[in-house]
Amino acid sequence: MRHIMSPLDFSVEELDRMMDLAGDIEKHPDKYAHACDGKKIATLFYEPSTRTRLSFETAMLNLGGSVIGFASADSSSAAKGESVSDTIRVISCFADICAMRHPKEGAPLVASSVSSIPVINAGDGGHQHPTQTLTDLLTIRSLKGRLDHLTIGLCGDLKFGRTVHSLISALVRYTKVKFVLISPEELRLPSYIREDVLDANHVEYEEVIRLEEALPELDILYMTRVQKERFFNEDDYVRMKDFYILDKAKMELARPDMHVLHPLPRVNEISVEVDSDPRAAYFRQVQYGVYIRMALILTLLEVKVC
Amino acid sequence: MRHIMSPLDFSVEELDRMMDLAGDIEKHPDKYAHACDGKKIATLFYEPSTRTRLSFETAMLNLGGSVIGFASADSSSAAKGESVSDTIRVISCFADICAMRHPKEGAPLVASSVSSIPVINAGDGGHQHPTQTLTDLLTIRSLKGRLDHLTIGLCGDLKFGRTVHSLISALVRYTKVKFVLISPEELRLPSYIREDVLDANHVEYEEVIRLEEALPELDILYMTRVQKERFFNEDDYVRMKDFYILDKAKMELARPDMHVLHPLPRVNEISVEVDSDPRAAYFRQVQYGVYIRMALILTLLEVKVC
Amino acid sequence: MRHIMSPLDFSVEELDRMMDLAGDIEKHPDKYAHACDGKKIATLFYEPSTRTRLSFETAMLNLGGSVIGFASADSSSAAKGESVSDTIRVISCFADICAMRHPKEGAPLVASSVSSIPVINAGDGGHQHPTQTLTDLLTIRSLKGRLDHLTIGLCGDLKFGRTVHSLISALVRYTKVKFVLISPEELRLPSYIREDVLDANHVEYEEVIRLEEALPELDILYMTRVQKERFFNEDDYVRMKDFYILDKAKMELARPDMHVLHPLPRVNEISVEVDSDPRAAYFRQVQYGVYIRMALILTLLEVKVC
Repeated sequence: MRHIMSPLDFSVEELDRMMDLAGDIEKHPDKYAHACDGKKIATLFYEPSTRTRLSFETAMLNLGGSVIGFASADSSSAAKGESVSDTIRVISCFADICAMRHPKEGAPLVASSVSSIPVINAGDGGHQHPTQTLTDLLTIRSLKGRLDHLTIGLCGDLKFGRTVHSLISALVRYTKVKFVLISPEELRLPSYIREDVLDANHVEYEEVIRLEEALPELDILYMTRVQKERFFNEDDYVRMKDFYILDKAKMELARPDMHVLHPLPRVNEISVEVDSDPRAAYFRQVQYGVYIRMALILTLLEVKVC
Repeated sequence: MRHIMSPLDFSVEELDRMMDLAGDIEKHPDKYAHACDGKKIATLFYEPSTRTRLSFETAMLNLGGSVIGFASADSSSAAKGESVSDTIRVISCFADICAMRHPKEGAPLVASSVSSIPVINAGDGGHQHPTQTLTDLLTIRSLKGRLDHLTIGLCGDLKFGRTVHSLISALVRYTKVKFVLISPEELRLPSYIREDVLDANHVEYEEVIRLEEALPELDILYMTRVQKERFFNEDDYVRMKDFYILDKAKMELARPDMHVLHPLPRVNEISVEVDSDPRAAYFRQVQYGVYIRMALILTLLEVKVC
Repeated sequence: MRHIMSPLDFSVEELDRMMDLAGDIEKHPDKYAHACDGKKIATLFYEPSTRTRLSFETAMLNLGGSVIGFASADSSSAAKGESVSDTIRVISCFADICAMRHPKEGAPLVASSVSSIPVINAGDGGHQHPTQTLTDLLTIRSLKGRLDHLTIGLCGDLKFGRTVHSLISALVRYTKVKFVLISPEELRLPSYIREDVLDANHVEYEEVIRLEEALPELDILYMTRVQKERFFNEDDYVRMKDFYILDKAKMELARPDMHVLHPLPRVNEISVEVDSDPRAAYFRQVQYGVYIRMALILTLLEVKVC
């Protein structure tokens, strides 16, 4: 039995097969409409996250299965002092697979070590959120037709952004991926990722301060939020915040075949005027998130559909 | 694609067809038990309302579909600052239709303007709650066999009562409906409804202070709550509150074929001793609420059942 | 139509049939996978209890039915002042059966008196929790092959422990059940249970202070939590707490065919090192809880499966 704690738990070949499956699901959804009849997913969200929770529930319902679970810790047994290990053993009697979000790093790993059903890490604190990364990979592959030979811009808070770190670690496994790291000095990608992930894998990258500089050469622009409170001082924030807001004017600098991704929720880092640009792919990304979660559930449950 | 924001979004003819459909659902529920197989409703309740939420969920489940959603804003992405527009675009990737309750007037309308799935306004602040009005119409039509040639008493807080305003606006489209407006002076129907809706449509109405005065002539009595804090002073409240409490004694003044409706929850404005009176129709009204929501879902999803 | 408020609502013969049914469900789950197609359970949890709620939801989903409900009172109409009687009349329009947990003793009984669907008491304050007792009975019967001729140790807080009181009342109906009551003096079984239940039924029992003393003769050890705040003083707690913690060393005193039960959640009264002991049955107990709830739902809905 397998679990997924990190996007790197699956080899490039395994991910390829999973993305092929997601692609087939996209094309032939009816073929999979009863693949998980009679099966249940438990969504154990110790920390609320509507989008992620509903994406998992949608994935299971699309496969013909059903859902049990909780949406926040106060309605769970955690309030009564039960350990995550005990909870997952109980849930193993109820469901066939489980998606767990927990504010504590490593909680899903602890759960998986005693679980008799597959556990999906649906986000553990600032640590990992593998299905977001799988979603990002599938979106890029679906839009560009490949995961290699790409120039990928990562914009915003590269210091604390969990999704960015995971995406980099996942993409360095493909050939000729170049990164353009777009952030204020204060929010640069941490040196341990630059050194241990990028340099160690001989991956090409450059760092720029302004989004405009980077835009013309990008195949993919991955936007994230820049929170005001992350800046050292108010002056710097005021001076620089516009550098990281994507609007129509900046989109004119980009290639006609560039695509914009965002893990959502977005606040104001992408102007709503960009939404109607055909290159805006952040809502399609949500749809790919459903397909890849369907493929992941089928893979972990070892359900074959012919 | 259509949405429903107000009960007036549908013409009298369209409502007739929808109520015919609800009647057929009541008679032949099995015929519709798989009409929405594989479809999903998202119940997006930014403000809790158990009855309304469960009524929508029951409606979809009765049609063979399934449910995703949230029951209060704190477990939603709204807490992270996401706009209603972005949320509905995300939900459009998950569900086939959505019912939204929101404390802010107009929020469901904003959602419908960018949604790629039908949006049902399940209550937006004190503004509209169209499926309550559809429920009221279906209940009256089912009990009386018609929506015209009726004398309808509306009792309680006619000033702030959203359901009463909507019901009046919906009923003036039928012939020979007469209203008896039963309320304290402080909670009279607002002049803009008396003038713009009743007078403008040449609808007959009278205003009375005491429920007893009105009861003998009514075909339908629509009760609502009179909240103490709506009165100008404590003395008035004490003096008048019994005027608006329906009990067994008052029911003796009413016709044997009058029916009592109430949007629920009731607090004490209808004495529990009235519950066993065959004219008490407020719990049957809940059942009609399920049928009309089933009919509405089928209509908006353009599902035909033969 | 029947409800279940107390485990004693069913005769020994009826319970036998229900446990036979649960046993058949365990052996042939597929036979029951569509027994409740098109039916709905409403889980009305005015007080959160994840395990119990999910157990009921799992039971109904395993039977092919579906679920509506709420997980805590704040998202229910109770907040708007609706009575439990009105709520259940509304829910009767939505669901086919209901499981209600309520902090107030007697609330499910009030509901059942006006309900037109079967009501299951899923815990009312410190009063009754019949499906926990049915779970305990089924677990013992499944593990030992019988409910008579057993020596059953009950350990921990016997004064306030609702599950222990219910289990005793249920087990005295079987022949030759002997109880060993293991608790500190402060938390002894109340005299009204010793006298009115045990003595009145001529049931053999002994009371001991230390778990070690009792262990060698037990067929079943039913563990419960001893809360620190229940002791008269800190010294007593420190002196005695280890008496009531089950660990590997204590397990060596027990018979090879003794089984350990616990209603869960456990905190530290059973050391995790005991989990791998084949005699530890508290997680299997959760599984039996699903089977007995499936059998109960089928029984109350009068669904026959051949």
